[in-house]
Amino acid sequence: MSRYLKTSKDEIGLSPQELVFRGQRKVDEILLRIMDFNESKVEEILIKSATDLQEYLNNESVTWFNVDGLHDLDLIQDIGAALQLDQLLLADVLETNARPKIHEYEDWIFLSLKMVQYNEEKKHFSVENISIIFNDNILISFQEKKSDVFEPIRERIRNQKRTLRSSKTDYLLFALLDTVIDHYLYVLSLFGEKIESFEEVLLDKPDKNIIEKINLFKKELNYIRKGIKPAREMILALSKIESDFIHKKNDVHFKELVNNINQASDSLDSYRELLSDQLNIYHMIISSKLNDIMKFLTIFSVIFIPLTFIAGIYGTNFEFLPELQFKYGYFIMLGIMVIISILMLFYFKRKKWL
Amino acid sequence: MSRYLKTSKDEIGLSPQELVFRGQRKVDEILLRIMDFNESKVEEILIKSATDLQEYLNNESVTWFNVDGLHDLDLIQDIGAALQLDQLLLADVLETNARPKIHEYEDWIFLSLKMVQYNEEKKHFSVENISIIFNDNILISFQEKKSDVFEPIRERIRNQKRTLRSSKTDYLLFALLDTVIDHYLYVLSLFGEKIESFEEVLLDKPDKNIIEKINLFKKELNYIRKGIKPAREMILALSKIESDFIHKKNDVHFKELVNNINQASDSLDSYRELLSDQLNIYHMIISSKLNDIMKFLTIFSVIFIPLTFIAGIYGTNFEFLPELQFKYGYFIMLGIMVIISILMLFYFKRKKWL
Amino acid sequence: MSRYLKTSKDEIGLSPQELVFRGQRKVDEILLRIMDFNESKVEEILIKSATDLQEYLNNESVTWFNVDGLHDLDLIQDIGAALQLDQLLLADVLETNARPKIHEYEDWIFLSLKMVQYNEEKKHFSVENISIIFNDNILISFQEKKSDVFEPIRERIRNQKRTLRSSKTDYLLFALLDTVIDHYLYVLSLFGEKIESFEEVLLDKPDKNIIEKINLFKKELNYIRKGIKPAREMILALSKIESDFIHKKNDVHFKELVNNINQASDSLDSYRELLSDQLNIYHMIISSKLNDIMKFLTIFSVIFIPLTFIAGIYGTNFEFLPELQFKYGYFIMLGIMVIISILMLFYFKRKKWL
Amino acid sequence: MSRYLKTSKDEIGLSPQELVFRGQRKVDEILLRIMDFNESKVEEILIKSATDLQEYLNNESVTWFNVDGLHDLDLIQDIGAALQLDQLLLADVLETNARPKIHEYEDWIFLSLKMVQYNEEKKHFSVENISIIFNDNILISFQEKKSDVFEPIRERIRNQKRTLRSSKTDYLLFALLDTVIDHYLYVLSLFGEKIESFEEVLLDKPDKNIIEKINLFKKELNYIRKGIKPAREMILALSKIESDFIHKKNDVHFKELVNNINQASDSLDSYRELLSDQLNIYHMIISSKLNDIMKFLTIFSVIFIPLTFIAGIYGTNFEFLPELQFKYGYFIMLGIMVIISILMLFYFKRKKWL
Amino acid sequence: MSRYLKTSKDEIGLSPQELVFRGQRKVDEILLRIMDFNESKVEEILIKSATDLQEYLNNESVTWFNVDGLHDLDLIQDIGAALQLDQLLLADVLETNARPKIHEYEDWIFLSLKMVQYNEEKKHFSVENISIIFNDNILISFQEKKSDVFEPIRERIRNQKRTLRSSKTDYLLFALLDTVIDHYLYVLSLFGEKIESFEEVLLDKPDKNIIEKINLFKKELNYIRKGIKPAREMILALSKIESDFIHKKNDVHFKELVNNINQASDSLDSYRELLSDQLNIYHMIISSKLNDIMKFLTIFSVIFIPLTFIAGIYGTNFEFLPELQFKYGYFIMLGIMVIISILMLFYFKRKKWL
Repeated sequence: MSRYLKTSKDEIGLSPQELVFRGQRKVDEILLRIMDFNESKVEEILIKSATDLQEYLNNESVTWFNVDGLHDLDLIQDIGAALQLDQLLLADVLETNARPKIHEYEDWIFLSLKMVQYNEEKKHFSVENISIIFNDNILISFQEKKSDVFEPIRERIRNQKRTLRSSKTDYLLFALLDTVIDHYLYVLSLFGEKIESFEEVLLDKPDKNIIEKINLFKKELNYIRKGIKPAREMILALSKIESDFIHKKNDVHFKELVNNINQASDSLDSYRELLSDQLNIYHMIISSKLNDIMKFLTIFSVIFIPLTFIAGIYGTNFEFLPELQFKYGYFIMLGIMVIISILMLFYFKRKKWL
Repeated sequence: MSRYLKTSKDEIGLSPQELVFRGQRKVDEILLRIMDFNESKVEEILIKSATDLQEYLNNESVTWFNVDGLHDLDLIQDIGAALQLDQLLLADVLETNARPKIHEYEDWIFLSLKMVQYNEEKKHFSVENISIIFNDNILISFQEKKSDVFEPIRERIRNQKRTLRSSKTDYLLFALLDTVIDHYLYVLSLFGEKIESFEEVLLDKPDKNIIEKINLFKKELNYIRKGIKPAREMILALSKIESDFIHKKNDVHFKELVNNINQASDSLDSYRELLSDQLNIYHMIISSKLNDIMKFLTIFSVIFIPLTFIAGIYGTNFEFLPELQFKYGYFIMLGIMVIISILMLFYFKRKKWL
Repeated sequence: MSRYLKTSKDEIGLSPQELVFRGQRKVDEILLRIMDFNESKVEEILIKSATDLQEYLNNESVTWFNVDGLHDLDLIQDIGAALQLDQLLLADVLETNARPKIHEYEDWIFLSLKMVQYNEEKKHFSVENISIIFNDNILISFQEKKSDVFEPIRERIRNQKRTLRSSKTDYLLFALLDTVIDHYLYVLSLFGEKIESFEEVLLDKPDKNIIEKINLFKKELNYIRKGIKPAREMILALSKIESDFIHKKNDVHFKELVNNINQASDSLDSYRELLSDQLNIYHMIISSKLNDIMKFLTIFSVIFIPLTFIAGIYGTNFEFLPELQFKYGYFIMLGIMVIISILMLFYFKRKKWL
Repeated sequence: MSRYLKTSKDEIGLSPQELVFRGQRKVDEILLRIMDFNESKVEEILIKSATDLQEYLNNESVTWFNVDGLHDLDLIQDIGAALQLDQLLLADVLETNARPKIHEYEDWIFLSLKMVQYNEEKKHFSVENISIIFNDNILISFQEKKSDVFEPIRERIRNQKRTLRSSKTDYLLFALLDTVIDHYLYVLSLFGEKIESFEEVLLDKPDKNIIEKINLFKKELNYIRKGIKPAREMILALSKIESDFIHKKNDVHFKELVNNINQASDSLDSYRELLSDQLNIYHMIISSKLNDIMKFLTIFSVIFIPLTFIAGIYGTNFEFLPELQFKYGYFIMLGIMVIISILMLFYFKRKKWL
Repeated sequence: MSRYLKTSKDEIGLSPQELVFRGQRKVDEILLRIMDFNESKVEEILIKSATDLQEYLNNESVTWFNVDGLHDLDLIQDIGAALQLDQLLLADVLETNARPKIHEYEDWIFLSLKMVQYNEEKKHFSVENISIIFNDNILISFQEKKSDVFEPIRERIRNQKRTLRSSKTDYLLFALLDTVIDHYLYVLSLFGEKIESFEEVLLDKPDKNIIEKINLFKKELNYIRKGIKPAREMILALSKIESDFIHKKNDVHFKELVNNINQASDSLDSYRELLSDQLNIYHMIISSKLNDIMKFLTIFSVIFIPLTFIAGIYGTNFEFLPELQFKYGYFIMLGIMVIISILMLFYFKRKKWL
């Protein structure tokens, strides 16, 4: 299946309200975590069914409801019912292959983006879709599988009484998005290190392996780019949105998000350019080497070709071949050969081939 | 005839109201299908002439009138008369080679775009023009030939009482356009699969065939792009239009259309870039191989050239050639040859050609 | 003289009101044609001097005054006097090398663009400047030489009582511009046919001729582009102009013009890209072929070089060369040669050169 | 010193009001020319010191004060004092290496741009900075050295009573800028002629010289571009400025300037593209030739390599080599050689190398 | 660590108010310099702790507080407390790896950009982050290490009573930014000199070294670009900001900044393009040389190959080889060889290979 664009024939013409989970099932059990907090308290519980949500809906504190795993349509449906979510909004949450976007619904704002994460152990990075729905008091985040991406934020909620605890959902949203973008920057910097290290290999020992590596990184960067570029559009739209759920005083944070995603986007472009330049340089070096090789071969052949020809002539068995009877014929031949070689070398010198 | 731009000398200077069918006749008989529905009923009939349209014009229900085949100018003219369509509008419908566009007329909105469809059996994809005219109660869709593209929507109208049945033409329009864009995404994902599979061949066994394939896909993508890019403009214009026929509450759907066509357009660009990168990589690999081959040839020739020359010298028939009389002359010659070879190999090692 | 930009030292610093005909004289005699029409009548006459214009100035009907040939400055001056045209406007008309543009004067709108025309007989296309001045009742079109480009429009005026005859100059203007753009599309489609046909030659028998052809078409497209791109700007400006001479009800036509010129511009870009891709493909195929040739040469040489060397050794005339006395020496040598060849072939197989 | 960007360490951190002449002294003596005119009179004098300016400051006529040469800081200072110019404005005038720009001061408008001029005799073109300050009655133009660039305008002021004499400084400004842009167009057309002539050489006899020429022109065009592109921005800003010193009725002229500089900018881009295409074509032709050469060498070598090998075998001195005793051994060998050659040629034919 | 993007896993998910110094410690001791001035006095002192700041906070004079070195978090914290700075603002100051940006806080404006400096002695350039916070009376500049970059401005404050001393912080800000941009221009002009000098080497003696140099400069320019491009955005935003701290009368200076940074940005692009063109030209010249070499080798080989073959034939030891007995056999062979050579040369002449 194509990696860049995942879509299947069955989806064509479906109603947008139709709930279909189009992604891969990446987790066994769906995990429902609630974190309910205000300046004075933090409450953390795991719930089993959507009905447990009820009590958090109308309290004054900020409720962060995190859903890990999306494959159980009934559960998602129940969550929708409990929160009185529009069917369309639920469909948006399930469409994990969609382009990052932001939609303002009447009572909620929906946004989605791709999370790029590097797995230290498995030495590869993964891309996962994250959807967030929020109003002034509740923020629900949907992830495809259980992850510890947002653990530092939980830690901040638990320990720090400052900003996070005393703010509404908009600051929590900022913290979540900031974490996602920090991961972009981190993964890009890992890529960057590798890419910058190619340079040396390239100048020292250019071969097919390095092309394959450059090619691989080019594709990986393009793949990540498909997540970052629309995320940038989305963040930009978010920073300009006029909504009751986003409070004036947090404008500076959303501007910061724009700045950070711009940095990610700039770096991505720089690395792409670097890779293109490296391919270019590779080509130049290969051409240059081929030139050197050909020069060497040419000089060598061209010097020996006439000498071998002369030896060939005196190797013929003609009955009457006067030079063969000359006393010093052999030495004269050798002398002529030396002279020809020297003339050749002069000629190459003048042609700047030596 | 050029595939990208179809126009003939005869069309120059024609009045825009002139009705000429400029496409190819792709169907034998024109098929006129009516689907008339509201929340409580669905009526489906095939009509034979435009006069049968009359009764659906002023009822309250939504009427979807689908025309498959455009070659019968009289019939089109009759439809125009029955619906009191502007001559210009009819001309727009017939101009199947035109660029996707949207025009607001006084009583109607006209829009056209290209449908890209993949034929599973014939293993090729086809491009067809679709025109849609609609006001608040009637939507007329014109296709060049009979197709089952919109069958899923008919099915939804028949079975689901939800949104489609309870909305006006704008939601039907959304459903139709959504289907068209879903087909874009589907065809692109098929292309993508193929294109991504080239990579392996490229790195493993690069030859002329793969270039021809890359070239072919490049052209096909360019061809599809000529449909998608202006369709994107059109969808964007549609999402911003202020018309009585498009109701506020459906804004979210038209935004979704924009998002989807953006995804199609992004993917298309990604694949085009991928193909360019592949060509580039191909070139690098070919250069790299040529380099290897030349290195091998050079090393080989350069080692044997002087050896053969030496053998040639002692193959001459000079009467007086002292070395030939040496007892171990032959073995000395062989020894010198071995030494020369070793020196050569050392030189190549230092030059990093080995 | 440069084809892309024609300007001479004499023009520098001239007053913009200065009337100089800077083009080439392309016609012997200037032809002045008047077509005066309204719904009820059509009058066509050829006039000899500008004074004959007088009677058409103040009548209610639409007057289309066509001037073929611009080299007679006195006549142009007279026309200017008769119509009370600003000196600047006349200078604009004469500057046939200028960039397509639109200027609103107090009583007139001036616009100019390039006409691209294909001459069926001479098998080449020509570019000509067309200037149009119009107010509500009079439209004057200036062409560099007599041509039948606008004949279909004259025919429509003569025969059809519809739109053209019952409208003001704005519809006539639309008809003229539409014709010009139709010619763009037609010429581009002719180019397209040729360009698309290169593909086959390219893949089958790539040689220097095809590069020269691609190069030629690239230049021709660039040349036409210099006419179409600013014409597009001009048409866009025209479609947005707010003038008493352009009536609301014809907006749809001017939008259509924008759409058509966009199609021309899109196609032009597609063809330019196609040509670039073709050059690229050409390069790939040439590289691929060179690779094949070098592989063949290398394999062949590398197999025979050591064999020839061995033969050379046994061709030496050393007095004491033991192998020569072996009874089956010759056959052993042949055997060794066969073994060497086979080993070589294996090596190449493993290197994937075979 | 870099040609594209001239700046020195000493300038860093200087006050913007600091008057430093950063250019080269291009003239011995500074020339101060005054042209004072209205519809009824023209007065031309050379003045020696800035105090002579006084009497022209408050009269009603238009005063054009031209300064050739900028190296005498005291004199520039005096002029500033006489005209009550802001220190900043004077600093702007002296900064001849700056980017073309326009600044509105309280009582003056300042603008600067690069003059590109072709010297017919010395066969090279020169770039010079021109600064203009003007209010409604006075226009001061500063040039780096004495030149006759504006002579045609002086001539028009002297002879024609029309527009120039009866207008304010804005029309004079237009005339000056128009002249500068005409020079752009003229120099570009000279470049164009040369560039278009490369084509023929390229297709006929591609060698290193033509690359060096193309490279040279590319650099020269880039250099000129650094003057034209910001000049275009400046002219655009000027055409949109709302100032008391620029009168409504001259709008049409400033629009014309925009049009002309657009044409210059378009042509420049076209020529740059042409040069890039030529380099590309050069590369293709070189590759094509290399291919031909290699094909020839390969065919030739490959035919003779086995033949020479066979001759080598029968040149060996084995005591027992049966074929040598065959009566027609020699002719059989020749026959086999002919057959091998023919088979080779067939093979090449099939491979399409012949 | 990647040079383009520096970020570490530890930073992910941190609160934006968290104070962490993420840069390298570039200086031993933090230096706190105060310059307090108005038209009548200048006071310069070094302070040891943030509390010494107190007395300068509420006076009327302009206070410029310069901090060299950022690694002592406590000190930075104290400064923040003394000036009542928002925690966020302090965090911004410490984030030395961030993208240049501008943020308006309630009582302060914050901006940061990269300083590019060339070290004359060490022959390399360095990049350093500079942050500036200012309100109407106080401007605090933070540098990563002690530097004399702003010394010329201190000198101007000390000596000149003009503008700097009589203005508010906005003019001081302008002076600081102007200095930074002047350094951009200076470093770019040094780069430019080097880059322009490559040309000659390239045309004269193209080898691998020059590619490595071009590659190095390309990377360095890209690196600087990552500082200049967002600085340009920042300066542009600054020139458009509406703040009480930036006074109308200094608009002209901020416009000048925009102009200067545009010049830097233009030059950077020009140099990047120049380097790309040089790589291109390099490739063309290398291809051209390879062509020459191959031509030479081909001509040489192709002439000698048949001659050596003929000699080989008469070197065979067939018992019956009639030509060997001819009296003038040897001379006839030599004659035939001469004729073959001449025919070859003719053929090459016709093929334009000679």
